[in-house]
Amino acid sequence: MFVLGIDPGLSRCGYACLDAGGAGRSRAARPQVVAIGVLTTPPSAPLPARLAELLGELRLLIDELHPNAVAVEQVFFQVNVRTAMSVGQASGLALAVAHAAGCEVVQYTPNQVKEAVTGWGGADKAQVQRMVQARLGLAEPPKPADAADAAALALCHLATAPLRQRLRAVAP
Amino acid sequence: MFVLGIDPGLSRCGYACLDAGGAGRSRAARPQVVAIGVLTTPPSAPLPARLAELLGELRLLIDELHPNAVAVEQVFFQVNVRTAMSVGQASGLALAVAHAAGCEVVQYTPNQVKEAVTGWGGADKAQVQRMVQARLGLAEPPKPADAADAAALALCHLATAPLRQRLRAVAP
Repeated sequence: MFVLGIDPGLSRCGYACLDAGGAGRSRAARPQVVAIGVLTTPPSAPLPARLAELLGELRLLIDELHPNAVAVEQVFFQVNVRTAMSVGQASGLALAVAHAAGCEVVQYTPNQVKEAVTGWGGADKAQVQRMVQARLGLAEPPKPADAADAAALALCHLATAPLRQRLRAVAP
Repeated sequence: MFVLGIDPGLSRCGYACLDAGGAGRSRAARPQVVAIGVLTTPPSAPLPARLAELLGELRLLIDELHPNAVAVEQVFFQVNVRTAMSVGQASGLALAVAHAAGCEVVQYTPNQVKEAVTGWGGADKAQVQRMVQARLGLAEPPKPADAADAAALALCHLATAPLRQRLRAVAP
């Protein structure tokens, strides 16, 4: 199963695609990094051009990776009013493109991600990055931070998806 | 020239396409309504499904109408925090799709629209709707209000585009 984490943003949109293995693989096996990085758009370009570019790049990414599920960070206004609108717009593009491509699409709050990855919702960025590094068996934390955050989102989905499936089986 | 006004929203996204005529037409001629209405998505559906549906419908609309310019209402957080995120996401889709289709894309604030259409930035909704009705020579104001707001955006663009063109000619 391929899970694509997306940390939405207009200047830097982090992504990380993890392969969690299939039925023939041990559940304890470590997820493999299939692709990780950031999509960028030039801050000097007009907003509609940047959004159109991000829309096209997200579509290419999803078409290429064919993820089963896409985990997108849920955006809140409170965090940073100046950039919240463009982050919200970027998240809207990611949610729309992923659903249109037939993926399961789930949003997670920053606290849900921290709790799933480190065991504590109040963990700081460095702790999340170290746990992402350890969980994926990398020599160092993924850089830039947006790519590490995207990997944390994909790990959060992998950690919580089995419970969600069991809940669906009980109350579909 | 075709101008498409878009009043972004997830439950109701207003649109209005006006034909302002071409070089062979008197500049004083009244703009003609080519298409007007609202795109809707069901509030009961999950957010990614609604955004994907709106993305597809906006693309169909723009492919069908081939507008030269698209005028989108600029969204602010202050107005309504509860719906601001989904309205922002809807506006992001409109801006991206319109730019990707090769249209000139311009955002206008609600006050710019009111001032261009009624001559006063503090005009209320009813005044804007009556002016839209009069400027387009309609028997009654367009309904629902989101469609009238979209027509006001297109009229705002038609009113301010000549000045913008002259400014570009002076300082390209």
